[in-house]
Amino acid sequence: MPEADVRPPGTAGSLAEPWRRWHRQRPPAQVLHLDSAAAGRCSTATLRAAAAHAEREAAVGAYVAEAEAQPVLEAGRAGLARLLGVRPEGIAFVESATAALETLLTSWPLQPGDAVAVLPSEWGPNLAAFGHHGLRLTELVTRGDGTVDLGSLEAVLAASPPALVHLTQVASHRCLVQPAAEAAALCRAAGVPLWVDAAQALGHVDTACGADVLYATSRKWLTGPRGVGLLAVSDRWWDTLQVRTSPLAVGSVRPGTPPVRLLESHEANVAGRIGLCTAVREHLDTGPRNVWLRLAKVGELTREALAGLPGWAVLGPGGASSAITALRATAGQDIGGTRSRLLAAHGIVTTAQIPARAPREMTEPLLRVSPHVDCTPEDLERLREALLAAG
Amino acid sequence: MPEADVRPPGTAGSLAEPWRRWHRQRPPAQVLHLDSAAAGRCSTATLRAAAAHAEREAAVGAYVAEAEAQPVLEAGRAGLARLLGVRPEGIAFVESATAALETLLTSWPLQPGDAVAVLPSEWGPNLAAFGHHGLRLTELVTRGDGTVDLGSLEAVLAASPPALVHLTQVASHRCLVQPAAEAAALCRAAGVPLWVDAAQALGHVDTACGADVLYATSRKWLTGPRGVGLLAVSDRWWDTLQVRTSPLAVGSVRPGTPPVRLLESHEANVAGRIGLCTAVREHLDTGPRNVWLRLAKVGELTREALAGLPGWAVLGPGGASSAITALRATAGQDIGGTRSRLLAAHGIVTTAQIPARAPREMTEPLLRVSPHVDCTPEDLERLREALLAAG
Repeated sequence: MPEADVRPPGTAGSLAEPWRRWHRQRPPAQVLHLDSAAAGRCSTATLRAAAAHAEREAAVGAYVAEAEAQPVLEAGRAGLARLLGVRPEGIAFVESATAALETLLTSWPLQPGDAVAVLPSEWGPNLAAFGHHGLRLTELVTRGDGTVDLGSLEAVLAASPPALVHLTQVASHRCLVQPAAEAAALCRAAGVPLWVDAAQALGHVDTACGADVLYATSRKWLTGPRGVGLLAVSDRWWDTLQVRTSPLAVGSVRPGTPPVRLLESHEANVAGRIGLCTAVREHLDTGPRNVWLRLAKVGELTREALAGLPGWAVLGPGGASSAITALRATAGQDIGGTRSRLLAAHGIVTTAQIPARAPREMTEPLLRVSPHVDCTPEDLERLREALLAAG
Repeated sequence: MPEADVRPPGTAGSLAEPWRRWHRQRPPAQVLHLDSAAAGRCSTATLRAAAAHAEREAAVGAYVAEAEAQPVLEAGRAGLARLLGVRPEGIAFVESATAALETLLTSWPLQPGDAVAVLPSEWGPNLAAFGHHGLRLTELVTRGDGTVDLGSLEAVLAASPPALVHLTQVASHRCLVQPAAEAAALCRAAGVPLWVDAAQALGHVDTACGADVLYATSRKWLTGPRGVGLLAVSDRWWDTLQVRTSPLAVGSVRPGTPPVRLLESHEANVAGRIGLCTAVREHLDTGPRNVWLRLAKVGELTREALAGLPGWAVLGPGGASSAITALRATAGQDIGGTRSRLLAAHGIVTTAQIPARAPREMTEPLLRVSPHVDCTPEDLERLREALLAAG
């Protein structure tokens, strides 16, 4: 990508603190990176922590290094627990959000044919995972903006409760945030577990929403390393879990070990987990609420900047506190081609989305723009001009 | 582990080239590392390659960096294919050997109740995975040393062929190497697939044995990063695979894409994979056959050095070309305690093994010693003295 390398990266010149600081904490961008919903840019400290752990593995042995790092990992779990609204013992590290969902589906007392209530905006691979486990999908009623209709949810929970309700709190493919806390209160009153896919929500909106189960990935809005996922289970459900304890752990599990910890994968990218622990600490230092408000503002600015752009329509309606914006081509452009031209000719990173990402709702490809907190008006102007040129 | 840090590390002084070079290629050891069967020590180039990719992800975006790195990944797959005796298109990266086996079991046309033929020395977690998939275990006859009895295997394949034969080529818990090439020839003649767990074999012995399926991990004898595994399927079986293509890949898979590549996990520790590609290149540069011969010699030297040690018995019989040695306590010592004392007081890293690692064969805990090619007679003398002191 030589062309992109010589393009001016995003400038943080007009930013307020703490977003200038957030920008400075990262290696210089060689692109205009508007793709946090795919993977955020790690901070230098996060990269260094991961690399330092890998070096320590080589110096003293991987399992000795892992044992030494337990306090770091425990602090990281505690930070994630705070963000997700569960007890620290309710957090487990795995390899990805996908692996987390698979682990949860394998560990929950579900039977083939059990119903999972979802929304039309549900993430395609989640729907596929439910199908692989023989679960039956039921669709919840939404309001015009795609959020769950809470009155209808309450009625469903009373009349024909599903085995679980599954919400993707922040949609991946467009600007859409679910009222997770309100849904959690209704589900809890009905005794039906609420599972939340927080892959796009963690580090982006308030995920301490009272859900029973949450799972997420390191690499998006928290800007941790790739190859790390996590799951969270409320202590209300720990006794419900059917944990497949590894034969190797059977002898070493102390009585009283929280069952969620037994879901953690052992043969793991521990260096990546250590990196995530640094990313979590930096996020907490910045102030999660500050980040949520800033990302809501960035999303708003993005949609404003792109409104009325010839050949493109911003997917509405607005109002959601998401930094994810989707554009529909109104002049027959090929979304994949636009994404490639934005990168190759303008050094701007975005995502081309196929309908399989949200197959119950998407009917055409969409271009996704997902800046992080260091996005400037100049960046958005540059995107607008590039879209006009790239078609 | 402050005590271990001040112990003299292993010295490579008396080593011949290329093993001095192998030693110099790694960060200085702060312990005497005799634990390659758990995880080998990464080279500096491997660590740098992984860290550099993670930095590139932060500079240009993770998916742009991954696209740029495709030639590196393809070269790594080609090197692994050479080592495992399959075509490069038959290699897929996943997260671990455990994930590889799970992926294979999910993608192979197996029915609950199908028979998997194993040996008494089979790795415990593999047996558990077969059980989770509803497979029935049948046990193959072994010779006195624990290797498969080939005559008996031939008879079983003719009389009551299992759905597959599964061999762990190099045992994890003691000095034992299976005649994988001979078994593969018999299985192929009978039309029964041979699956090989090469987690301890890859980079240790010749794994281009003609097996139909192999899977392994990055971190052991190849000394790649943690959090990376791989699987290999011979082209004879590509049409047999029942690949669960991700909904996200459905639109982008080109006609003719080899099905094994579709088993590769997409949300991944790509930096670790890049590190493994460097480790594979270094291994090929050193010469795999040189490494196999050297590791066989290191195992022999280890067993010689520990023979006759009061309170300990080297598990026999000898003769296998494995650098893994197991010690049985003959004076009632607690293996876990010995392992801890060796580390804390002597700076020597070994493994305490519980019987669940090979539950059909192990009846008591064992101490595992697994040096790599840079092991010296002085290292082994130091281990011997430490064992006498540590009890």
